[in-house]
Formats: sequence, C-alpha cells, structure tokens
Amino acid sequence: MRRERHAAIGVFDSGVGGLTVLKALMERLPLESTVYLGDTARVPYGTKSGEVVTQYSLANAHALAEYDVKLLVVACNTASAVALPALRAKLPIPVVGVIEPGAKVAAESSRTGKVAVIGTPGTIASGAYQKALHALRPSLEVHAQACPLFVPLAEEGWVDGDVPRLVAEEYLGRELLTGGVDTLVLGCTHYPLLSQVIHKVVGPRVTLVDSAHATADEVTRVLRDEELNRTDVRASVERHFLVTDTPNRFLEVGARFLGRPLSGARQIDLKLA
Amino acid sequence: MRRERHAAIGVFDSGVGGLTVLKALMERLPLESTVYLGDTARVPYGTKSGEVVTQYSLANAHALAEYDVKLLVVACNTASAVALPALRAKLPIPVVGVIEPGAKVAAESSRTGKVAVIGTPGTIASGAYQKALHALRPSLEVHAQACPLFVPLAEEGWVDGDVPRLVAEEYLGRELLTGGVDTLVLGCTHYPLLSQVIHKVVGPRVTLVDSAHATADEVTRVLRDEELNRTDVRASVERHFLVTDTPNRFLEVGARFLGRPLSGARQIDLKLA
Repeated sequence: MRRERHAAIGVFDSGVGGLTVLKALMERLPLESTVYLGDTARVPYGTKSGEVVTQYSLANAHALAEYDVKLLVVACNTASAVALPALRAKLPIPVVGVIEPGAKVAAESSRTGKVAVIGTPGTIASGAYQKALHALRPSLEVHAQACPLFVPLAEEGWVDGDVPRLVAEEYLGRELLTGGVDTLVLGCTHYPLLSQVIHKVVGPRVTLVDSAHATADEVTRVLRDEELNRTDVRASVERHFLVTDTPNRFLEVGARFLGRPLSGARQIDLKLA
Repeated sequence: MRRERHAAIGVFDSGVGGLTVLKALMERLPLESTVYLGDTARVPYGTKSGEVVTQYSLANAHALAEYDVKLLVVACNTASAVALPALRAKLPIPVVGVIEPGAKVAAESSRTGKVAVIGTPGTIASGAYQKALHALRPSLEVHAQACPLFVPLAEEGWVDGDVPRLVAEEYLGRELLTGGVDTLVLGCTHYPLLSQVIHKVVGPRVTLVDSAHATADEVTRVLRDEELNRTDVRASVERHFLVTDTPNRFLEVGARFLGRPLSGARQIDLKLA
C-alpha cells in the first residue's frame, strides 16, 4: 500500500454484493485501476458478530496490501458498520466505507424528516446508520429494520415474483413505512438487485437511496483532496478480481451485480487471512 | 482422540443444523457424552466449494481432537458429501457421515423405486446421495434438486405461511415429484424444520426421510462393533458446545433445532482452524 497517484483503488466485500459499488467506481473514475477482493469462503458477514467481521476485514485489508493500493473502499455495509475504526487505525492509506456516504444522501434528501434504513442483522444491530444519520441531522426520525432473507434472494436471483414481494411486504409493509417516511436507505449492497420489488411495496412516494453512487462520489473527493487521483489519461487501467473460495460461483453470480461478464478471478490462499 | 469407551462422541456441523443430529444421538445413546462444534464463523457450507468445505472440515476435526473423542459424526450433509475421504484418511477414529445412513433408509423404503433427494447446491452438485443410493439399489430412479433458500428460511424461523410454501412449490412442485416418486430424502440438517410445509406440498403419498435418526442408529452400530460403547450407567454424561463465532446467535437459533434451551457454548479461536 502506498499513497501514490499511480496505485490502484482496493475494494473488499464479503462476496459479490460489493460489485455494485465497484460498478459505480468504474463509471465515476474510469482512469483508476481497481483490485476487488470478495471473501467468498466466509460469506455472508451480515449474520456474524462484529468481532468476527472485524477480524475478517483486517485479513482482507492484509491480503490487498500485497497489491499496490492507495485507498481502500469497504464495499460491505456490515464491515463498514463494525470495522472502520480498526481498519483506519491499522492502515497507512485512506479508508472509505459505504455507510456515511449513503447516510449523507438520505439526510439531505428527506423532506418529512423521517427516514428508514434496511440492512443485514449485523448492520442494523450495530446502529451505525442510525448514528451517522443523527450526526448529520439530529432531528431525523430513523426507523431501522433487518431484512436477512434479502441477501439469499438476491444471490439466488429471486428478484421478482410472489416470493420476494411477500418477503418485502413482511419486512416493509406495516409499521416501518407508515407515518411519513419518505426515504429508504438500502443499507446492503445486495439490495439494489431487489429495488424494483422494494419500490412496488413501499410505493412511489418513498425515495430509495443506494450508497454505491454516493460512495463513488466520496472516493472521488478523497482522492482529489489527498492529491491521489490519476491524471494521466494514457496510463493503462487494470482490473483485478480476487476471491477466497474457488472462482466459479463468483463469476456466475457476480456478472448480475457488475452488470457485465467478469473476465476471471484469482483464488488467494485462505491461510493468508 | 482415542479409541476408549469412556471418551465422548464428537459432532461437527457448519452451524446449528447439526443439532437435529445431536438430538437424535442424545435420545438414542443417553449414556454417551458429546462434544458439538458449530463452525458459525464460516457458515454456510452449502454454497461453498468442495475444496473449501474439506479444508474447514479438517480444521473442525483438528479442533475436536483437543477433546477426548472416540468417534466423529459429520452432521453436515455438505461436509459429509465432500470431505469424508479426507477425514477418514487423517483421523485415527471412526468417522460417520449423514449421507449413507439416510440413503440406506430411502433405498429400503421406496416401493416405486423412484426417490427424490433435496439438499444444498454443494451436496447436490457432489452427487454423493445419487451415488450412495445407486450403490445400495442400482435400479433406483433418483431425482435431485438443490433448494438453497431453505437454509435461510429455517435459520430465520420462517417455517410456515405463504413464503415457505411458495418456495417449496417452486423447488418441489412440478417436475421433481411427478411420475411416482414415493420417497423424499431431506438431505440437509436444516430441512426437518420445514418438514410440515414440505409434506403439504409433496402430498401424503411421499415419505420424508430425515437422516438424523438413521445416523444415530449407524453410530450405535459402529460403537458396538468397535467395542467403544459406554456401558457404565453411573458414569457422568457431559455435553460440550463449541462455536467459532460469538455464542449468542447460536444459543438463540440452536434451541429451535435441539428442541430445548442450550445452557451455553464456548467460542474457540478462529486461528486454530
């Protein structure tokens, strides 16, 4: 890891979900090289403890440190919720999570002052979104709801039809979105794949906030402020993909998240971590 | 690990599912002490590669080796499907998986000669049930279906109502159970929790086979054949529970699987594995 313009942006996630964040980064910062690590041997993080997720996050950062990385994006909401302080304490480069950028968009866009956030059990239990939203706008009324079945539904490609609709109604239909909530934060990188069905359940008056683009904006700002952004348009752009399990399933499911086929991924040794 | 009557039965699973097997063992062999390890920091195994599941299985056996264990039960179908040869090659004690016992019951009980098996993607892709069933009864017609959403549904306690019914209909409703299948193997330790809804979907003519009791019978037979069964009715019976993540969620969800409250579980160091 080194603070140099030429180096790459490192991104890690528990698996494929963070590819929605990588996609936004590639669109927003086309000159930047990227190294993406999906911890597919230990996915999911959302149902595990903060202690274990922090341990895995440090191991992922350690694996990415072998690459020439100038900034680390924690593309997993659960890891962003629990492991940012530990990562920032250990690493000599800027670390950007997905929670603060998403919370900022939500805090700024709500008119009613009532915001809901959905995420994994780990993210919701951490209270990280609730804290970030209140820090930005203390008067906000924040409703939080864990939606554990959304991750397996998105991973299995069950993103429309009766099952995801009924699951979304169970999580979102009653208490959560009554009484003036006008902004719903999709606090998990898997959830954008379910945004159509979520949108139908919550209705057209509720704006869905996906932190991928907000995070790409934040990365752009940090690179510029730290004078780490690439400026040489002739430099070659590299894309590396690393996984901790065998690559097959990552390549297959990942294409849905990245919105394009993945050329390949290298399996790194689990013992590293 | 040592081959002595006084030692305990070791059981491991990817998480809580194997507690259905432990429950059957406790009922069938009330004099035997048990040590159960749930690899909750890396659950689930069913969507991971055979390579990684074998690595985790060996690590679990290694952790259980620190205890006084005379026989190892691999209570996870996915691990039984891919890791038994590696475990048997490495360990000095008998190793019993859940697939052969379940397959034996199914092969013996089918009248039509048409059997279906459901399990995780890892179990089904391994072909282990298909091979075991054909070895026992070569003329059997075997239908196999992966049901990846059943594990999160069982873990979250969504075991009745519209969502599990629709999911079960999607997996089981059409091709799988037409044409005379009369026996359905529940090839994952989570699935017995969904047996009521599965039973409704497949109808009363299909017998559900749960390998927990068949596995307890097999363990009883092996202990007797190897002269390892406890005979002293006055000896104290110990129950140990180990987990790789923090115990809270294991204790909470595990009670549903064991059918009684769990007194406590000790977290073992991940780095061990």
